[in-house]
Amino acid sequence: MDLHILDHRLRVTSISKSGLQNYTHPLIKLIFLRDRTRCKFFSLTETPENYTVVLDEEGFKELQPSEHLQVECSTWLPLNVISNGNTSSSSQAVGVTKIAKSVIAPLAEQHVSVFMLSTYQTDFILVREKDLSVVIHTLAEEFNIFQEVDGESVPVHSQDTCNGLQRNGKEVTSHVVVLPGNQFCVMSLDPDTLPGIATTLIDVLFYSNSPKEDAAVADDLECIKFFSFSLIDGYVSLVMDTEAQRQFPADLLFTSSSGELWRMVRIGGQPLGFDECGIVAQISQPLADSDISAYYISTFSFDHALISEIIQCCGPTNKRSELLELHCPRKSRCAVMTNSL
Amino acid sequence: MDLHILDHRLRVTSISKSGLQNYTHPLIKLIFLRDRTRCKFFSLTETPENYTVVLDEEGFKELQPSEHLQVECSTWLPLNVISNGNTSSSSQAVGVTKIAKSVIAPLAEQHVSVFMLSTYQTDFILVREKDLSVVIHTLAEEFNIFQEVDGESVPVHSQDTCNGLQRNGKEVTSHVVVLPGNQFCVMSLDPDTLPGIATTLIDVLFYSNSPKEDAAVADDLECIKFFSFSLIDGYVSLVMDTEAQRQFPADLLFTSSSGELWRMVRIGGQPLGFDECGIVAQISQPLADSDISAYYISTFSFDHALISEIIQCCGPTNKRSELLELHCPRKSRCAVMTNSL
Repeated sequence: MDLHILDHRLRVTSISKSGLQNYTHPLIKLIFLRDRTRCKFFSLTETPENYTVVLDEEGFKELQPSEHLQVECSTWLPLNVISNGNTSSSSQAVGVTKIAKSVIAPLAEQHVSVFMLSTYQTDFILVREKDLSVVIHTLAEEFNIFQEVDGESVPVHSQDTCNGLQRNGKEVTSHVVVLPGNQFCVMSLDPDTLPGIATTLIDVLFYSNSPKEDAAVADDLECIKFFSFSLIDGYVSLVMDTEAQRQFPADLLFTSSSGELWRMVRIGGQPLGFDECGIVAQISQPLADSDISAYYISTFSFDHALISEIIQCCGPTNKRSELLELHCPRKSRCAVMTNSL
Repeated sequence: MDLHILDHRLRVTSISKSGLQNYTHPLIKLIFLRDRTRCKFFSLTETPENYTVVLDEEGFKELQPSEHLQVECSTWLPLNVISNGNTSSSSQAVGVTKIAKSVIAPLAEQHVSVFMLSTYQTDFILVREKDLSVVIHTLAEEFNIFQEVDGESVPVHSQDTCNGLQRNGKEVTSHVVVLPGNQFCVMSLDPDTLPGIATTLIDVLFYSNSPKEDAAVADDLECIKFFSFSLIDGYVSLVMDTEAQRQFPADLLFTSSSGELWRMVRIGGQPLGFDECGIVAQISQPLADSDISAYYISTFSFDHALISEIIQCCGPTNKRSELLELHCPRKSRCAVMTNSL
């Protein structure tokens, strides 16, 4: 398999809920007006606590500093695994599951923090630029590694003297996980039809926290607010729950032919920070063992795995994972976690 | 003819060019998200100096005070003339020309300041709420006057004792007028198709002052930046020059069957303020005498008449109007002004 170090230098930022409206102008530009920006990597994810914005340096220039904007101090580089046919894996699973053993686990062993961003098209593994030599050294055995420079893929060889192989980051600790009640879909659309969903997308992203006039309040306490939009190298990906999906015109968005729905496992009772490593590995390893597809989206404060609804069975169980302290809200089904961990 | 005093209490505001991006969030809500606001009267006009926003009190609540927002202190009421068949006018002209003699001139004689807002659908004559008794007294002879209250039209009769008939406002003075080179169109679209032009409209309104990536700079110094959008009681009106028009999908916007283009006469070398009266009368009276159609859009700083392109002839002339000191930029055609004034 090939591993590509993509030609994007990324910043991971967070905009507070109350501060979002101050960033409406640059965010709408980054989402809809490709002619007006050189930004090629943009991702915006709403969670109950904030908006996580991951974007390249061209995009980052658009965000004016303010008390509403938090910026993780590192530069992050996105890695991308490309199966070029001669893969030894017989896995049918998609998403983070596919790279759990080959990428996620080895990096966790080297204590490299990763920030995951699954999209409709692919899974981006973000690593800190300063960890790159460790990453290359760690993954060189399993992968042909290429660095993309100005559209060209240049082979990268691990240096014999890798001086970065010290222990980075903190050891993984036990985290609370939550299984919200809503079901999610992972979708895409032709970027040329993005204007067709503009007002709906703007409404959902920027105004969904203000009540609609005369709208009935149907607040399901078990559901989580989670909406992710990304526009990366011209490809659009959307992750939203079925309630949000109903607001969009059905003819423009598409999902995989199976039309799968996904349930979320949200990791972290307290904000996770960026220094702890092994969290993705802890979740993805057992999923890989059972060949269960999963998307994985890291945000500024928490991690989120999306696990295929199909493999879930009903009813709560008292069985607990060895590693994770499961916190299941009333009526939530924790079969996935207990089966797979 | 009937004169309706509409059920909107309006504020006239101005947002600075540099401050617009701070108002992106409320303005996009007011333009595109009708479900989220009770605002029923909204108009936004970009001119070279600022953005004039005229809106009702529900809409005004959305605009946070800041150093970028100027607010005229009065409450304004929109008047609307409805020809109910038994009009004595034989005029074929549209726009402000039609009401020049019946409304504009009498109000000017009474020194009532008016703020004009022509749209594709109709012409709104805004008067200060405090001047209403003078307005009613002045126009009661010519019109059946109705006040709209909660969707009902209630007949209004002039009080015999009108204590407002003192001289309001300043006398009209001589103003510089400018005739920019661009041609304008006055358009509308089905409000249900507004989402279809959302990204273009957002681009033109909020981002047109930042250069496009790799766009050729074609700056015509004789052209004026002028773009007006209004959404009033569910009706959309757009006034834009032919260059802006080319950016919009041709199948959604419509104009009158004749597809007329209009040339602008911009009134005021210095900001006009709100206290001077008689400016609209000064422009519209000679147009009415010659039965020349014209739209008229007041903004926070200047007034703008749009005069049918068809009636213009070419070539500059040395003939000057008696009232106006014409300032014609190089190569501009001032035939309209000199013919009609």
